[in-house]
Amino acid sequence: MTLQKLKVAFLGPLASFSHQAAAESFKKASADLLPHVSFSDAFASVQKQEADYAVIPFENSTNGSVVQTLDLLSDRNNQYKDVKVCGEYYLTVHHCLLVHKNSYPNGLPSYDGKITKLYTHPQAWGQCEKFLNEYFKGVERQDVSSTSKGAEIVSKEKDECVGAIASHFAAEYHGVDALASNIEDRADNTTRFLIFRNIHADRTAGTTLDFESSSSQTPIPNGDSKSAEKEKETTRKTLISFSIDHSSPGALANALLIFKAHGLNLTSINTRPSLRRAWQYIFFVECGRKVSVENDDAVMKALNDLRDVTESCRDLGTWKDQLGVSI
Amino acid sequence: MTLQKLKVAFLGPLASFSHQAAAESFKKASADLLPHVSFSDAFASVQKQEADYAVIPFENSTNGSVVQTLDLLSDRNNQYKDVKVCGEYYLTVHHCLLVHKNSYPNGLPSYDGKITKLYTHPQAWGQCEKFLNEYFKGVERQDVSSTSKGAEIVSKEKDECVGAIASHFAAEYHGVDALASNIEDRADNTTRFLIFRNIHADRTAGTTLDFESSSSQTPIPNGDSKSAEKEKETTRKTLISFSIDHSSPGALANALLIFKAHGLNLTSINTRPSLRRAWQYIFFVECGRKVSVENDDAVMKALNDLRDVTESCRDLGTWKDQLGVSI
Repeated sequence: MTLQKLKVAFLGPLASFSHQAAAESFKKASADLLPHVSFSDAFASVQKQEADYAVIPFENSTNGSVVQTLDLLSDRNNQYKDVKVCGEYYLTVHHCLLVHKNSYPNGLPSYDGKITKLYTHPQAWGQCEKFLNEYFKGVERQDVSSTSKGAEIVSKEKDECVGAIASHFAAEYHGVDALASNIEDRADNTTRFLIFRNIHADRTAGTTLDFESSSSQTPIPNGDSKSAEKEKETTRKTLISFSIDHSSPGALANALLIFKAHGLNLTSINTRPSLRRAWQYIFFVECGRKVSVENDDAVMKALNDLRDVTESCRDLGTWKDQLGVSI
Repeated sequence: MTLQKLKVAFLGPLASFSHQAAAESFKKASADLLPHVSFSDAFASVQKQEADYAVIPFENSTNGSVVQTLDLLSDRNNQYKDVKVCGEYYLTVHHCLLVHKNSYPNGLPSYDGKITKLYTHPQAWGQCEKFLNEYFKGVERQDVSSTSKGAEIVSKEKDECVGAIASHFAAEYHGVDALASNIEDRADNTTRFLIFRNIHADRTAGTTLDFESSSSQTPIPNGDSKSAEKEKETTRKTLISFSIDHSSPGALANALLIFKAHGLNLTSINTRPSLRRAWQYIFFVECGRKVSVENDDAVMKALNDLRDVTESCRDLGTWKDQLGVSI
């Protein structure tokens, strides 16, 4: 009997950072990587079990949360009720300023200021502000759907002198040159991807994938690598969303207290508009715990208590921490 | 003795939504409205006391928080230490699809699909998705620095057939036509502006400006207008930012508990990357209270307690609630 290869959805097109994250996080598995044109398409594939997993950007260490992902997780029309987080992957992001093949063989020192337009994904501008202010101040910026798309446009543009911000991976794929490399503001610029599966899918039910991140080789401060490694093995993160009755005083504080009561350490909070009524929000709370016999059912107990004090709440999944933060 | 007119900074250019918000919120005062090219310029003007007030967008009821404003409030380089919130203003946002003067005198029914490019501020795309998907699917989108700038581009473009999303106010200012009006997804699409002053400025120290919002005429559910009015008069909001030691378990929950302990009702929480270390955040907590003799110093007491459990915390101001939410 031969097992069918795993199908992993990512936010396309080919050679995007999401593609790179999908390739790296599933490098030990036998997987087909499938580009998807939108966040919602990738989620829908997992809901319909056309894909086994989806690899979706969740936050960047410089730019913050990816609101499109939070909006997907809000799932306001109840389209993705079986899609849950099962893992995370940290990808260290390196950007390049890409130009036509052979247009500047001597690199940045020979650049003559002729580029009239730059292309990249909206998140990337904010990650390269210093470089852009120094070398491309005032140059027109055009958002495109992914960094790889920008590289593709540069490769095809015949008349205008244009540039793009994307990875070396995308440069190679589209046959363009890097005028400058590592142009990101911060050397530790990292994007965290969440990996999703369908909770009713038998094919992925038994697997415990360990998505070793590209940033996990970074030494972890305040501890030797062995103890950090041990800590990582026993640390789990959980994502829970809820909405509250804003007219009830103390409702938000009461909901957050429940996490503490069950030994779940709050690590981040995000909010999005509920879109049901103005100035009411959906809260996304991420929490962590070191797994023990005693707290094995802490998430379930917390969810039970949350149901009493929230308008709605939802378990969005539990997975193994890949960062080794102490929680 | 004649008093010098108030100077109010807003995010330019002229005829932007920020201009409209500044004009409406200071309509009862004698004020010069001063356009500024960036969020940071407007903030710097108030810090240097070149402007008395700045009117800055904070969140939209559909699109969520304005991250540039949160980043300004993060004030990572301690540039704006005296700039604090002193008021808020709710502006109901109506968008139009603007085109060349007289190009479609019969409006949307006569539209022939010839527009090849649309211009607007990044936040506006998300507010008009339904309309754009119906009439302008696949049309190239170009981000510009404000909705008004988009209207200006349309007024000046001679060769291409282009459009912009902006207000009627901007259409009149730039002499272009509205092909369609009220194209926003939600009729209650509202932007909340915060109004800032310098806490050391004598000129604005004694004034208690009441920024009556454009949405305040909306009937408030569950209460007659008189009692809602009374409630508004005694309700104050406060914004506090803090960072925590993420390696200390329970630090975030402990910080949030302090608000509850002092009778401050949490109404919203936002986060931005600290940029000091990856995956550490600055938290922005907004809280409200009905002012009474007993809780007059609640904010001061909460800040004192917060200093014990946070790495840093900051009072970003207290102001009169204009929404009439029950808290």
